Amino acid sequence: MKWQCLFSFTHMGVWAADTVVQLSESQKPKPVLEGLQFGTVFTDHMLVIEWSNEGGWGKPHIQPFGNLSIHPACSALHYAVQLFEGLKAYRGQDNKVRLFRPMLNMKRMLKSARRACLPGFDGAELLECIRKLLEVDQEWVPQSDSASLYIRPTYVGTESSLGVKKPMQALLFVILSPVGSYFSTGTKPVSLWADSKYIRAWRGGTGDCKMGGNYGASIYAQYEAVDYGCQQVLWLYGDDHQITEVGTMNLFLYWVNEEGEEELATPPLDGIILPGITRQSILELTRKWGEFKVSERYLTMADLRLALKENRVKEMFGSGTACVVSPVGRVLYQGENLEIPCEVNCSGLVSRLQQELTDIQYGRTPSDWAIVV
Amino acid sequence: MKWQCLFSFTHMGVWAADTVVQLSESQKPKPVLEGLQFGTVFTDHMLVIEWSNEGGWGKPHIQPFGNLSIHPACSALHYAVQLFEGLKAYRGQDNKVRLFRPMLNMKRMLKSARRACLPGFDGAELLECIRKLLEVDQEWVPQSDSASLYIRPTYVGTESSLGVKKPMQALLFVILSPVGSYFSTGTKPVSLWADSKYIRAWRGGTGDCKMGGNYGASIYAQYEAVDYGCQQVLWLYGDDHQITEVGTMNLFLYWVNEEGEEELATPPLDGIILPGITRQSILELTRKWGEFKVSERYLTMADLRLALKENRVKEMFGSGTACVVSPVGRVLYQGENLEIPCEVNCSGLVSRLQQELTDIQYGRTPSDWAIVV
Repeated sequence: MKWQCLFSFTHMGVWAADTVVQLSESQKPKPVLEGLQFGTVFTDHMLVIEWSNEGGWGKPHIQPFGNLSIHPACSALHYAVQLFEGLKAYRGQDNKVRLFRPMLNMKRMLKSARRACLPGFDGAELLECIRKLLEVDQEWVPQSDSASLYIRPTYVGTESSLGVKKPMQALLFVILSPVGSYFSTGTKPVSLWADSKYIRAWRGGTGDCKMGGNYGASIYAQYEAVDYGCQQVLWLYGDDHQITEVGTMNLFLYWVNEEGEEELATPPLDGIILPGITRQSILELTRKWGEFKVSERYLTMADLRLALKENRVKEMFGSGTACVVSPVGRVLYQGENLEIPCEVNCSGLVSRLQQELTDIQYGRTPSDWAIVV
Repeated sequence: MKWQCLFSFTHMGVWAADTVVQLSESQKPKPVLEGLQFGTVFTDHMLVIEWSNEGGWGKPHIQPFGNLSIHPACSALHYAVQLFEGLKAYRGQDNKVRLFRPMLNMKRMLKSARRACLPGFDGAELLECIRKLLEVDQEWVPQSDSASLYIRPTYVGTESSLGVKKPMQALLFVILSPVGSYFSTGTKPVSLWADSKYIRAWRGGTGDCKMGGNYGASIYAQYEAVDYGCQQVLWLYGDDHQITEVGTMNLFLYWVNEEGEEELATPPLDGIILPGITRQSILELTRKWGEFKVSERYLTMADLRLALKENRVKEMFGSGTACVVSPVGRVLYQGENLEIPCEVNCSGLVSRLQQELTDIQYGRTPSDWAIVV
């Protein structure tokens, strides 16, 4: 397989051909995926690539999975100079392993790297390294059409000094984790706590990049949501309580809008929204269907509340790599439980998207979105 | 020395008495502090304390300074579950080593821990552990009244799974670094780039905690400031361009305000301002002087511009542990260079504060703010 070199903002390093492989002497047993908690089990190997300002990119190393040796002044630990990506490898019934639009992950990773002041790299070369890692750990890609092998590229500053500045050393590593369904409730509708007390991201911040700081800051709110009897946070923004994201997912509202049009709507990429690859794929897919209006537009809690009152809401759901799509069943807002219709009673857009996207991911529907590795 | 146990939100762990000390077999040479870059040289030992949900707090270990062994799925590296503190040990001419209001650092560290969903601890016990570490590395506290030993407590989540959640494992460690003056320019006035393109912190975020994510996100803006020929960012907030912080420091404006009153003003702790210990000390000190009005109030760029035009600005400066106080000489705002008067021509508040605070820190003026270790 050759990746299209669509992007690269540095000419430094031609990696993949130089990859050094050191195989693990033992192999871990594969876990039972049923009931397995997300991201808790890792494969036998990992990919590690070091960068330094003096030496540039070092050779990629595929090596036994194990702890990293990190300087205690490392800027990744003190100043969150860090970012990550998430994608999956899916095994089809044809036994082929596929990735879903991985070039988009590389592109986003480079965007995050720029924002974090980490050096650029050739995305196509990194993907080729990831392919080599998958080759080594191929037996870890589950034989299942509901499970997959989660791929976590991670990129951190390893500058070993306490000045707040551009790192002179960095570490890019990729780990693999076999996963079943992300939420313990499976595809059951989730309940959301909508409150403006905590704000996920703001203009002039880093909400449109996959940087660690966005996530750590969200955990406290997540537990407050649980205290209110909800599973996730519905992140609001601004005095008009714009609906932005849900938990760690993008958000979609499928409804009849103010103009009486059937519409699938999600907030625009205006700097505070993570440019999700599942988000983009849902937009492109539904636009191709041409069955209803598809919009990137602002949505407020007032819009949602009025639409619910007038029975104009068809479905609401989150989207992300971990879950694909996840229906919303209830929103707790200003002391009021807003019941959201969901697929069981409605049009089944969530089910249809889940089906069409996983059909592509597992190779049941031919698509140039699925890349055989 | 016994620390006052002013705070503690957990009864878990009585640490200090259990400290295990393993001395380094070799001693590093002490660096020349003149021209030494901030936070690049570390002492011979470090303090490490592990926590797990099952076992609670482990014994504190004072051990040879060295790399940490970190799981590659560690939540500190992926989701910035991390926070830090910064304080200094000063050696007086009486050869005694002092800390400056360290209980305030412990209190703030606990506040950050709560926000990061990391477990609480007994601040007085941690301080006692730090005192033991300082005892072991006491020769590293410089014999100088312009240098000091910077103390960096760091607290990170070490949960080794990829779910975004409260960590079940954590690591608290403290490293020490001998430092001279923070800025390469010494106490020369700094130039600032004031632009609302990047926002440091926002309400509902983490700007009032010392969490890593606040700092990593700021680096990109810092380099844009340099591109504009300035040294630091003057962080603005809101449509009215409120002045909030400068670089990694709190901000003070010493001026004649709109009412014609001589006033020292700094933005209030409303959720987006880091509650600096130097900030608090300056407020308390100047209020004790009773020579001018001391206010925690909003200040906008329009206020500053008008005051400059009317010759009402006396001085403007940043404050922080690293620099104590740092005068501002120029602000680039909307294409215009605003020249700020500074101590050389003016009242010398910066010089006076620098003198009074360092007199306390180095024990030249007796004060209960300086704790002999």
